Amino acid sequence: MRPRVNAVKIALLQINPVVGDLAGNARLIAEAACEAGRKGAALAVTPELALVGYLPRDLLLSSAFVADSWTAAAALARDLSGQLPVLVGLPEPNPSNEGRPLFNTAVVLHEGRTGERFRKTLLPTYDVFDEDRYFEPHHGAQILELGGRRLGISICEDVWNDRDFWKRRRYHIDPIEDLIRSRADAIVNLSASPFSVGKHRRREEMLGSMARKHHVPVLYVNQFGGDDDLVFDGRSLGFDATGATIARGRAFGPDVLLVDLDRAEAVPADSAAGAAESEVWHALVLGTRDYVRKCGFTDAVVGLSGGIDSALTAAIAAEAIGADHVLGVMMPSPYSSQGSVDDARDLAGALGIRTLTLPIEPAMIAMEQTLKSSFEGLPRDVTEENIQARIRGNLLMALSNKHGALLLTTGNKSELSVGYCTLYGDMSGGLAVIADVPKTMVYRIARWLNDTRGQSIIPEATLTKAPSAELRPNQTDQDSLPPYDILDDILQRHIEQHQHAEEIIAAGFDPDTVRRVLRLVRLAEFKRKQAAPGLKVTDRAFGTGWRMPIAAKF
Amino acid sequence: MRPRVNAVKIALLQINPVVGDLAGNARLIAEAACEAGRKGAALAVTPELALVGYLPRDLLLSSAFVADSWTAAAALARDLSGQLPVLVGLPEPNPSNEGRPLFNTAVVLHEGRTGERFRKTLLPTYDVFDEDRYFEPHHGAQILELGGRRLGISICEDVWNDRDFWKRRRYHIDPIEDLIRSRADAIVNLSASPFSVGKHRRREEMLGSMARKHHVPVLYVNQFGGDDDLVFDGRSLGFDATGATIARGRAFGPDVLLVDLDRAEAVPADSAAGAAESEVWHALVLGTRDYVRKCGFTDAVVGLSGGIDSALTAAIAAEAIGADHVLGVMMPSPYSSQGSVDDARDLAGALGIRTLTLPIEPAMIAMEQTLKSSFEGLPRDVTEENIQARIRGNLLMALSNKHGALLLTTGNKSELSVGYCTLYGDMSGGLAVIADVPKTMVYRIARWLNDTRGQSIIPEATLTKAPSAELRPNQTDQDSLPPYDILDDILQRHIEQHQHAEEIIAAGFDPDTVRRVLRLVRLAEFKRKQAAPGLKVTDRAFGTGWRMPIAAKF
Repeated sequence: MRPRVNAVKIALLQINPVVGDLAGNARLIAEAACEAGRKGAALAVTPELALVGYLPRDLLLSSAFVADSWTAAAALARDLSGQLPVLVGLPEPNPSNEGRPLFNTAVVLHEGRTGERFRKTLLPTYDVFDEDRYFEPHHGAQILELGGRRLGISICEDVWNDRDFWKRRRYHIDPIEDLIRSRADAIVNLSASPFSVGKHRRREEMLGSMARKHHVPVLYVNQFGGDDDLVFDGRSLGFDATGATIARGRAFGPDVLLVDLDRAEAVPADSAAGAAESEVWHALVLGTRDYVRKCGFTDAVVGLSGGIDSALTAAIAAEAIGADHVLGVMMPSPYSSQGSVDDARDLAGALGIRTLTLPIEPAMIAMEQTLKSSFEGLPRDVTEENIQARIRGNLLMALSNKHGALLLTTGNKSELSVGYCTLYGDMSGGLAVIADVPKTMVYRIARWLNDTRGQSIIPEATLTKAPSAELRPNQTDQDSLPPYDILDDILQRHIEQHQHAEEIIAAGFDPDTVRRVLRLVRLAEFKRKQAAPGLKVTDRAFGTGWRMPIAAKF
Repeated sequence: MRPRVNAVKIALLQINPVVGDLAGNARLIAEAACEAGRKGAALAVTPELALVGYLPRDLLLSSAFVADSWTAAAALARDLSGQLPVLVGLPEPNPSNEGRPLFNTAVVLHEGRTGERFRKTLLPTYDVFDEDRYFEPHHGAQILELGGRRLGISICEDVWNDRDFWKRRRYHIDPIEDLIRSRADAIVNLSASPFSVGKHRRREEMLGSMARKHHVPVLYVNQFGGDDDLVFDGRSLGFDATGATIARGRAFGPDVLLVDLDRAEAVPADSAAGAAESEVWHALVLGTRDYVRKCGFTDAVVGLSGGIDSALTAAIAAEAIGADHVLGVMMPSPYSSQGSVDDARDLAGALGIRTLTLPIEPAMIAMEQTLKSSFEGLPRDVTEENIQARIRGNLLMALSNKHGALLLTTGNKSELSVGYCTLYGDMSGGLAVIADVPKTMVYRIARWLNDTRGQSIIPEATLTKAPSAELRPNQTDQDSLPPYDILDDILQRHIEQHQHAEEIIAAGFDPDTVRRVLRLVRLAEFKRKQAAPGLKVTDRAFGTGWRMPIAAKF
């Protein structure tokens, strides 16, 4: 029997690092650590790789960058001397001339120096993760002694391989079992776990069951904020040895979360974590704000068609960076209905954003004249529609260039899936805000927004009219596509669940529709290859988690 | 002592599979195997994953696709019954509920059935490779018995970890040492090794030294052909037990290469593998041909500016798919010099490609009028230049759409590195032919081409005039950029050798120039994120081997 020890409080520093910004991230850590010290914490813990920001991607291949992060860690240790010990995540060179070049490490900063190191064992290499590209796995339990306690240190994926929780395990070892065998009193996990709808519940359930199974408290710290296509939702967690949740950090915001290892009082279930609509809204607002800010912009441009996609995108932008920093641009053509122009104007009024109207007919005429003799005798087709979309793209990019404002793309996941969008046209922009939101979910979020605000932010007409690209007379999306509820169901099965045609047909869908949709998905790969980064909110987004061949046949 | 055995010939099937085309690839294998049988081979060996085509990327995450490949293997085995045994590469489901979902496997097809299986041990996860994303490593030596011989079977990366050849080893084990310990008489390697300049020499040297060191013949079979951004150069190889090269397959073309395990006669050094200029030319021609063909196109469109980049791109296209399948489009603006128009016309004449002239002034005027009031009081800047480039992009895409021809992008690596190009403008297109070729190398290849052909394919004026985007009066590239020989040297150090500012400055470059270039590289990340796939010819191309954050600060 080990002797009883005094109560120990550990602070989880839920911060929002910027990838590569060593000085800025060190400052964030220092401020949060000082707050933790004032609150009586005996140890503060950052998220995974917090000093360099998760995920740094191929910056890790620069040995100068990795060396700079250790210089920054040493400086941070000096800044924090006299403070509590802080466990900070950063990449560490692998001293061996065998194996991958780095370890994914956490280092204790204390008494002005960098001290003990703890390394990650399980390296996620699936979906958006590429950790085997950079890191060598560590083997063996790593314990941090603190006030008579034995804290078992783990990093992110290390807690995601419990044999009792998962039907299929990706790895052959469970670092947590090793920690328990090495008599850890508690499990600490430095994490950077990206948001997707519903994942925070799975996470809390998994970590709670781990605490219960091993009869130890579990402490989990996650970063928050947007990083290119990924959004991190924070929601750091503490569990007691019965698996009850005893601390829960803010969703989508900063927190310094204190966890008392001896506290028995459970916190109530997470009532703020509501419906999918609310979750996605908050993720997209944070992701948009951080992309704009971290790219050095203050203002954004959005093309407003009067349709639901651009309406929701503009609403997210206004919430993210302030209505007075958003410019809505209406670009009517001869095929635009008066209703669409009115709807766009109503939306802009409800949001309080500035607008600009740039009719595209003069440019359409000039393009048509220029191409007239080359197109002689050939029927009108999708070419003429694309020309319009690309004139709009050119105008929006001109405004973006001239005013130094980021162009936000408005396409949804359904149309990006089947290629119902124009490359260099409506796909133009620096960030695709709702590119991972299926069309049916776009409607649900718009209705949720109106309900929540108690007013029609998104105009009723936008919500009820038939969706249309308005690129030729009387066009509607359903001329070319199956109804969106059926389309989205097929797409979800195919994209997120990896189902192939036969499996989807077996679930009761029309075989011709399924084959046609899957064929469209395949043919649109060349468009997605050149798409703007889109904020990930589902289990599988187009982007770094979707790596498909283009010149292929299957 | 084992008894002496009769001479055994093994055929290396150097084929060009299409990713995902199971039926087509099976046909390629069957034809090549039958040819091998007629030539007296006792065994035929395909490249790595040949039945599904390398690299299938996330197609591997579809269990239906993997199952289909085994159905295709079984059918191929039946087709080949009565023929020699054939060792065929394909993905294999991992039957365990632990570990990654697949093995990277080779299976023997013989007597109408799928037989013995051999699995890959070392899984490359760097540069363009993501094999840890899909595959579980195998452990243990795998021997195929054939006519009294013990053939040690290895797959691609398995031969790339020799402790005596590499200063730094990425893996802790050497599967070849295991095979030798298991008394392998020869090493067979199924490979898919992408082209980069000079790599084939390194490959031959490494494999020869392996044969010499272990005193066994080594047989290496590589695929050829283009696969999205990658080009495979073939050049399968056979070595005797002294390390002498005794067989060498065609470069950039098909081959059925017979290797007699007892033949002592070395083949002469590879005289056809000439200068870098010739190597890159052949790689780009093959890569362009296969991208066009494998995407289902027959024709291509190229914008011709009169400059060197579009000239070389058009020459490659004409060589790849035939001059009568290439349309060159001239789009002069008021800033275009008469010389440029003449140069473009001369080039088209020399290549024998059709041309079309579409002046962009009318569209420029329409765009300017449309934006006039929004731009009131603001100075002209890069915005107006981008508008021109995007009008050209719109016209080229319209021709591409209307005629069903693939638009080829003409930008080089130097400008893509520093962002000296317009997103949705000159970056428009389905394939970026010379995106991995530095500007200085573009000139060298153009001169080499003229020398080789004994005539000025690329007009002399194009080769000698100062490079210019001609987007404003009297503009030249060197107004904005350092001289290309200095720029390319800095870029090569930074991109391919991962050198940071201080290291490059230490090599003698002007500090301000180095810092400015590296800053431009960083700022152009958002453009590269949306760039067309570019054919890889250097050790590190932008594309799947370059994974950089955008919203970052470093």
